[in-house]
Amino acid sequence: MTKIEVTGIAASDGIAIAPVYLLTEPDLTFDRTTVEDAEAEAVRFDKAVEQATAEITQIRSIAEKSLGEEEAQVFDAHLMFLSDPEFTGQVREKVSSEGINAEAALGDVSDMFIQMFSAMEDNAYMQERAADVKDVSTRILAALLGVKLPSPATISEEVVIVAHDLTPSDTAQLNKQFVKAFVTNIGGRTSHSAIMARSLEIPAIVGTNSIVSQVKDGDLVIVDAMEGHIIVDPTEEQVKEYEEKAQAFEEQKAEWAKLVDSPSETKDGHAVELAANIGTPKDVTAVLENGAEAIGLYRTEFLYMDSSDFPTEDEQYDAYREVLEAMDGKAVVVRTMDIGGDKELPYLELPEEMNPFLGYRAIRISLDKKDMFKTQLRALLRASVHGKLRIMFPMIATLQEFREAKAFLLEVKEELLSEGVKVSEDIQIGIMVEIPAAAMLADQFAKEVDFFSIGTNDLIQYSMAADRMNERVSYLYQPYNPSILRLIKNVIDASHAEGKWTGMCGEMAGDQTAVPLLLGLGLDEFSMSASSVLKTRSLVRRLNLTDMQALAEKAINECTSSEEVVALVEEATK
Amino acid sequence: MTKIEVTGIAASDGIAIAPVYLLTEPDLTFDRTTVEDAEAEAVRFDKAVEQATAEITQIRSIAEKSLGEEEAQVFDAHLMFLSDPEFTGQVREKVSSEGINAEAALGDVSDMFIQMFSAMEDNAYMQERAADVKDVSTRILAALLGVKLPSPATISEEVVIVAHDLTPSDTAQLNKQFVKAFVTNIGGRTSHSAIMARSLEIPAIVGTNSIVSQVKDGDLVIVDAMEGHIIVDPTEEQVKEYEEKAQAFEEQKAEWAKLVDSPSETKDGHAVELAANIGTPKDVTAVLENGAEAIGLYRTEFLYMDSSDFPTEDEQYDAYREVLEAMDGKAVVVRTMDIGGDKELPYLELPEEMNPFLGYRAIRISLDKKDMFKTQLRALLRASVHGKLRIMFPMIATLQEFREAKAFLLEVKEELLSEGVKVSEDIQIGIMVEIPAAAMLADQFAKEVDFFSIGTNDLIQYSMAADRMNERVSYLYQPYNPSILRLIKNVIDASHAEGKWTGMCGEMAGDQTAVPLLLGLGLDEFSMSASSVLKTRSLVRRLNLTDMQALAEKAINECTSSEEVVALVEEATK
Repeated sequence: MTKIEVTGIAASDGIAIAPVYLLTEPDLTFDRTTVEDAEAEAVRFDKAVEQATAEITQIRSIAEKSLGEEEAQVFDAHLMFLSDPEFTGQVREKVSSEGINAEAALGDVSDMFIQMFSAMEDNAYMQERAADVKDVSTRILAALLGVKLPSPATISEEVVIVAHDLTPSDTAQLNKQFVKAFVTNIGGRTSHSAIMARSLEIPAIVGTNSIVSQVKDGDLVIVDAMEGHIIVDPTEEQVKEYEEKAQAFEEQKAEWAKLVDSPSETKDGHAVELAANIGTPKDVTAVLENGAEAIGLYRTEFLYMDSSDFPTEDEQYDAYREVLEAMDGKAVVVRTMDIGGDKELPYLELPEEMNPFLGYRAIRISLDKKDMFKTQLRALLRASVHGKLRIMFPMIATLQEFREAKAFLLEVKEELLSEGVKVSEDIQIGIMVEIPAAAMLADQFAKEVDFFSIGTNDLIQYSMAADRMNERVSYLYQPYNPSILRLIKNVIDASHAEGKWTGMCGEMAGDQTAVPLLLGLGLDEFSMSASSVLKTRSLVRRLNLTDMQALAEKAINECTSSEEVVALVEEATK
Repeated sequence: MTKIEVTGIAASDGIAIAPVYLLTEPDLTFDRTTVEDAEAEAVRFDKAVEQATAEITQIRSIAEKSLGEEEAQVFDAHLMFLSDPEFTGQVREKVSSEGINAEAALGDVSDMFIQMFSAMEDNAYMQERAADVKDVSTRILAALLGVKLPSPATISEEVVIVAHDLTPSDTAQLNKQFVKAFVTNIGGRTSHSAIMARSLEIPAIVGTNSIVSQVKDGDLVIVDAMEGHIIVDPTEEQVKEYEEKAQAFEEQKAEWAKLVDSPSETKDGHAVELAANIGTPKDVTAVLENGAEAIGLYRTEFLYMDSSDFPTEDEQYDAYREVLEAMDGKAVVVRTMDIGGDKELPYLELPEEMNPFLGYRAIRISLDKKDMFKTQLRALLRASVHGKLRIMFPMIATLQEFREAKAFLLEVKEELLSEGVKVSEDIQIGIMVEIPAAAMLADQFAKEVDFFSIGTNDLIQYSMAADRMNERVSYLYQPYNPSILRLIKNVIDASHAEGKWTGMCGEMAGDQTAVPLLLGLGLDEFSMSASSVLKTRSLVRRLNLTDMQALAEKAINECTSSEEVVALVEEATK
């Protein structure tokens, strides 16, 4: 028996050994036929509805236990719709009056409902109901066809999820208790599913290209997400070997865990700030558990993306306040809305663009749609009294943009003060440095901003002119390329010359090869997935600042390629 | 009577006063109907065919006179098809057998032919015939519907072309004798139609947004393509005023023309090289007429784009040799194929990309498709003995890419030598600097390349993370932004430190505001539209290098915005 081994990109550390749960879309195509016995067909339909009801009831109960009451409530709407005679009655009526098969009748009726709900453009609540109809109809259709639907929310034993790709919402629904790892065909280290995996601390391998076609439901697999390696149908020896490796990793993590209250300081006494990135207030738990000293990036776009309409000022205020209070005086860097590029909002019509990454996004939208921007700024300023708030503008290319955004912020602040609303007097205002032009002009920006946070994911893709999501050119996504290190150095040096600080909130900040270089370049704050904080603290505490300064200098002046830089770091830190 | 004044982006200098020729797609929609008298319908069809034949015959004859025999031959294929009973017979047959109107019958038959020809995937010649069928059917359909088709090739009196946009091939077909200017709704100074206009020396205004809906066929318009200003239905006084302005511009051009053999030297004796950009061997005439000292950019992709299949080694050799011989010992910088981004080849299947400007293009394709690359390099090396050849690789992001391309070039050279083919021993090998990472690492590139040529169009869009074709962010296309000037300085300084030279072949090199700054930064070679060379020489001869050095230094160190830089240049050069 030949073993199948599949490799991919290690996206979130850890090792898992469990059976495969294939999360793929089943084939639900059907033919439209006429039926002789319409009565029998209606009975067949009723049975399918019964089965769907039983399934959803079960899913609801499991979801409630594993994900909580709030997540489970979505299924109540499904059950209500299933028991609505307006819906099921119309399908039965169509079967008998037209003599067509239940699949076709169901399709016609659900299409009609979906169109009707979708057309209610001014009513976000009713528009969402269209999604419910779709979910429910799909489940009845699967029952009619005798096809099993995957339902990740019902997973109640240990599995490794295997999928073509996972959307952020797929990933958010995974129950850590049972999902021991996931493996996907596409994606890279900076894709959203990879970022989510690190945030949830679920081992993950992405970009395998072929995993979906290489395994079946229930196949035992070993996922070594440290090496990016999957073994299908392992031998007993292999299982034993990886159980030991997993054990060693757990012990390693236990060692790291002891550092939760230790300072992030090099051997020669240079302290840096290790911070974490978050997407929602819920993520703060992991931030604190992992001993992060601050939140270096709060991605507020999730507030917009997880909603069916623009979040109100109060909704935003509640979220910001919750985070600031939970952090209890530790700094929270909030990035204003970063929509556009590959992040869309269903309720905000963005233009079709030939190159969305070079298009209308982030601060460019905020400065254009001041009403929306104002709502966010008011919410932030109101929340500022509940903690240590720092506000950061994304995708700043020119000083004018920063000046305009800052002036608007101050205007909104004046308005709040005149309304008698309290606003903190101690809010730092900074920018993301993710556009090469801003990095080149950092000395001039440094005179006007309070801080920089380098967004390496975008900075690298613009500097190399290579879309990091595009597999044909992803080899050009080179964090260690000396050109990138030089841009980073330019930013850090410029901030220090003006007595300001520089952080980094791209993936690079938690990368174990990059950290020694960034330390040497003088980076003040490193913001990463919460799950990387302790590992990074352990690394920082093993390094000497003076050595790393020499290392960084050499990398910048002597290396001509990414590979040379990596070799240099390996040599210096081994 | 209120005058309509429209403004846009001045894309090619000059003034024109002439009636409008609207080059827009007419409405050719029709209903499918049944006809009572199929006989009469067939006669109606025959008349339409006759009319189409007469029109095409006339177009052919005018095209032959104005554009030459070669361009006219395409119409022979159309005439042949029109007289093919296989085609017209089937339409007549369909009218009588199905009793449908001629428009519908023509549509069905032409669709069938188009599909048949298009399906012949291995036969590029037959695939092109599909386009002929489409052209011919459109003309018959227009005759049936009594709609006039615009046919720019038949223009035989002075006009101003007004269009939504002009494709490169539209622009190439314009006859300078009669087309006094063109004005479009969309586009910017760096769009292809703008570049073509400057190369053809036709005054042009682009990006007016609305010109198509503001004028009718035959309206008299004044086009002031110096100011980006169009006056519709001018008064007599306005016509007089602009005739005088046009006269003054002609006199100015006559003054510049006297500089055709003068050195491109500042008042204090610093010589630079003023070169021209070309797309095809035909463009060399204008290069020489305008006294350019070299060709700084030969865009070889036109060889690929104007062809229905990959150009053969001999076809390429002929083109390169023609240019090198015509330049008679003056340098010719040939850029290897720059396909991808917004430039597609019908016969090269490129992947659908989310961000083509950050995707698979130029050297990235060449290094991936070595067969295609080899054909071009063999042709270039064979041609090298006929003049002073310089080879330049586009879209270089890393040193590895340059090393790989250069090594392959040397390998191909060895192969040719071993075949007994002569190759020049004096070919400089350089790179386009159009990716920020390459500009940042210029000191290391300078050790290995023979020269740099800065491609500002792309360098600016990547540095600012703004697609220059995207109207929503085109305000970020800022050539004078200090960040861009710093990147340029970095490249020039690095080349000089290694005894190499730096040119520029983006639009900025011929920009009258940029030239003083670029002189001050030490740029060695300026490559631009041939039509800008004499104007730029005149400017260079009025400036002092030492003053411009001070100007550039100030712009780079003190200015915080594009506007400040422009004000500084205006102050210094007024």
